[in-house]
Amino acid sequence: MDIVDLQTGLGELTTVEIAEEMSRLGSTDQAVLFRLLDKDRASQVFEYLDVAHQAELLDEFREGRSAELLLDLPDDDRAQLLGEMPAKVAARMMAGLPEDRRQVTAQLLGYPEESAGRVMTPVPTVISADSTREQALQKLRGRDLRNRDIAVLAVTDHTRHLVGLVNLSTLVTSAADTPIAELMNKETHAVNATDDQEKAARLVQEADLLALPVVDDENRFLGMLTVDDAMEILEEEVTEDAYRAGGSEPLEQPYLTATVFHLARKRGVWLLVLILTAVLTVNVMSFFEATLASVVVLATFVPMITGTGGNAGSQAASSVVRALAVDEVQPRDIGRVIWREVRVGLLLGVFLGALIFPFISLIYEWRIGAVMSLTIICICAWACIVGGVLPLVAKKIGVDPAVFSTPVVSTLVDATGLVIYFSIAQVILASML
Amino acid sequence: MDIVDLQTGLGELTTVEIAEEMSRLGSTDQAVLFRLLDKDRASQVFEYLDVAHQAELLDEFREGRSAELLLDLPDDDRAQLLGEMPAKVAARMMAGLPEDRRQVTAQLLGYPEESAGRVMTPVPTVISADSTREQALQKLRGRDLRNRDIAVLAVTDHTRHLVGLVNLSTLVTSAADTPIAELMNKETHAVNATDDQEKAARLVQEADLLALPVVDDENRFLGMLTVDDAMEILEEEVTEDAYRAGGSEPLEQPYLTATVFHLARKRGVWLLVLILTAVLTVNVMSFFEATLASVVVLATFVPMITGTGGNAGSQAASSVVRALAVDEVQPRDIGRVIWREVRVGLLLGVFLGALIFPFISLIYEWRIGAVMSLTIICICAWACIVGGVLPLVAKKIGVDPAVFSTPVVSTLVDATGLVIYFSIAQVILASML
Repeated sequence: MDIVDLQTGLGELTTVEIAEEMSRLGSTDQAVLFRLLDKDRASQVFEYLDVAHQAELLDEFREGRSAELLLDLPDDDRAQLLGEMPAKVAARMMAGLPEDRRQVTAQLLGYPEESAGRVMTPVPTVISADSTREQALQKLRGRDLRNRDIAVLAVTDHTRHLVGLVNLSTLVTSAADTPIAELMNKETHAVNATDDQEKAARLVQEADLLALPVVDDENRFLGMLTVDDAMEILEEEVTEDAYRAGGSEPLEQPYLTATVFHLARKRGVWLLVLILTAVLTVNVMSFFEATLASVVVLATFVPMITGTGGNAGSQAASSVVRALAVDEVQPRDIGRVIWREVRVGLLLGVFLGALIFPFISLIYEWRIGAVMSLTIICICAWACIVGGVLPLVAKKIGVDPAVFSTPVVSTLVDATGLVIYFSIAQVILASML
Repeated sequence: MDIVDLQTGLGELTTVEIAEEMSRLGSTDQAVLFRLLDKDRASQVFEYLDVAHQAELLDEFREGRSAELLLDLPDDDRAQLLGEMPAKVAARMMAGLPEDRRQVTAQLLGYPEESAGRVMTPVPTVISADSTREQALQKLRGRDLRNRDIAVLAVTDHTRHLVGLVNLSTLVTSAADTPIAELMNKETHAVNATDDQEKAARLVQEADLLALPVVDDENRFLGMLTVDDAMEILEEEVTEDAYRAGGSEPLEQPYLTATVFHLARKRGVWLLVLILTAVLTVNVMSFFEATLASVVVLATFVPMITGTGGNAGSQAASSVVRALAVDEVQPRDIGRVIWREVRVGLLLGVFLGALIFPFISLIYEWRIGAVMSLTIICICAWACIVGGVLPLVAKKIGVDPAVFSTPVVSTLVDATGLVIYFSIAQVILASML
């Protein structure tokens, strides 16, 4: 397949498909593929890449080309990218921008990391509250609305204080002389530029907004958090939660292109914490070694016991973590959560306990069956409480609830579950010990 | 606090806040709160509720009020709600709608469940490809664009075939006599009405669209999948994945209002499957009972071994499940995934193994230390492979990869991990057995 064929092939793919394919390639291959794209297409594809890949690509190109790619990015994306680069490189790149873009970019970079200001699209054009529909449309003509995004316009008074929003679609469909004051929506959500970007993005999602106005401390309009940026922020958040749920720190690069060492480092931290926590289980097992030695069959069930406890706990934790993420549950609901989880745990425990009792009693003896059934009941209830409560406590003390992931919950439940198991065994099997 | 106070308090909350608060209440309280809202506000709040709560509320109201609430919903949301209701109730509700809304709703309900057609917003207004900007704006004036959503318009030929899209913002900012053909974007994504809604929603997200055109088999324009609906679809998808990652089936209702029995049922299925799978571990333990009886200290480490294997496996699985969800990895990458995971697993295993060796050797003896270290190395590598491969296999055979959640992976790794553990122990401790 020669270059011309490849270029024809690329012509048939959509921008998104090319960007996706590129994120699966190593950095040299990426650069080669990228050079094959025509200029406009290249800028478009560049926009869709994630920050890590954008930075890699810029590295591969000569100064002139890099400056061009950077300039073609929307202001908020450019600020995002520069914020992630080493300060020195970022400063050099900034110097290559035309004056007006440099100012806007510097302003965005002035807001704290992870703030709404960092990710907003600056919108210089606003509609005056005392104009009419026709005047507003006249004013818009010829303006650069950075039109990929803006479907909603800010309505302000003469000192740029936000007083409402008007949808472009409302503007377009109404009669020429309607006053803007009649068309605008006054019940307007807005966030401060220093507010957390995740909180802002969630508001966009919950209130079904196309754009959320960002204001300064005096309620002056600065720009919009657009829905596509909000989706990206939430997507990142979801990815973080998904990694944490599996007991690993989130990767900073796509899975296939991250180095093996990067992957190992992100997982190693938690794996280490977990194995240290698992020392508890060794202690519990040692403590009951005499019991284990006299009834060796007890050891046989240990993995089943710890496994079931871990599973029940992880089910409860994942329900509550998710409910917290979508604001269905709050830390103050802790009483209600415990009361639900106790009952759910008991129900599950009784169901499983009743199921296994006859089998274990037949194969071993009824006392072993009784120990197992009772243990399963207690452990299910206990695991559900632990799994339900820990994420709420985390949220309360300001830790990401997703940290109380399945592995963390199950490791904690393992040790306590074994205590329950051996205590029950010692009582019921007293005559055998 | 009397009714008037409560109404004043409600007046200070935003629509979204009220809807959120309602989703935390039981159905009777919900209905009471809902009755306190004025008419417009009630319709708005109703729109933000999820389908389960909407259905509950409609149940609480008399026919007249229900019909009104239903009529105020956007067409796609109404179809969604009716689709979830018992056929008899849905038919009665449909009969209460005016003719035109009934037709639109019936059309949407005609598409398969989970299809793009079911969730699209029907948009009767299109722009003709041979008109000018001014003609297009004239045509729009006075039209009902269902303006909450539409920021992008379909451009069609005279037989309603989709030929491109034009952003309202482009339309508004360009000169009066510009031909639409010049303003429209021809590289247009579109989906068929029978396509899967999740695939469509992901396209909206990946291509940063405000609306995705939905067409019929002849490429005739039917309506738009709007970004807010796409976000909702993806949010549901994420919730499903989060539940599955914790080893439970997704709930059909918010956590706090679902019945305890509902919660138990969604978790019980998997807990049962897992405990049955855990029978494998009992078999492995029984098989090596002689080894256990002669070196009781081996039992002491069982929970630590199974725990570490489960954790390493769940880390790998969650990385790969997430990478699959965002299309970073595909089943055909299985070779690359295995090769990465083996190396990551070995790296992690050697790190942890080297760390625990001196401690265990000191407390017990060096041979026990050697057994444990070697086991940890092998089990980490094995768990990473299993965790990485299973989601890919699932995707390949058309099962949701999230099903190979942490609990499933760790239960599978438990049994095989124990075989590794005891085999290594038998070789190294041969003289002690």
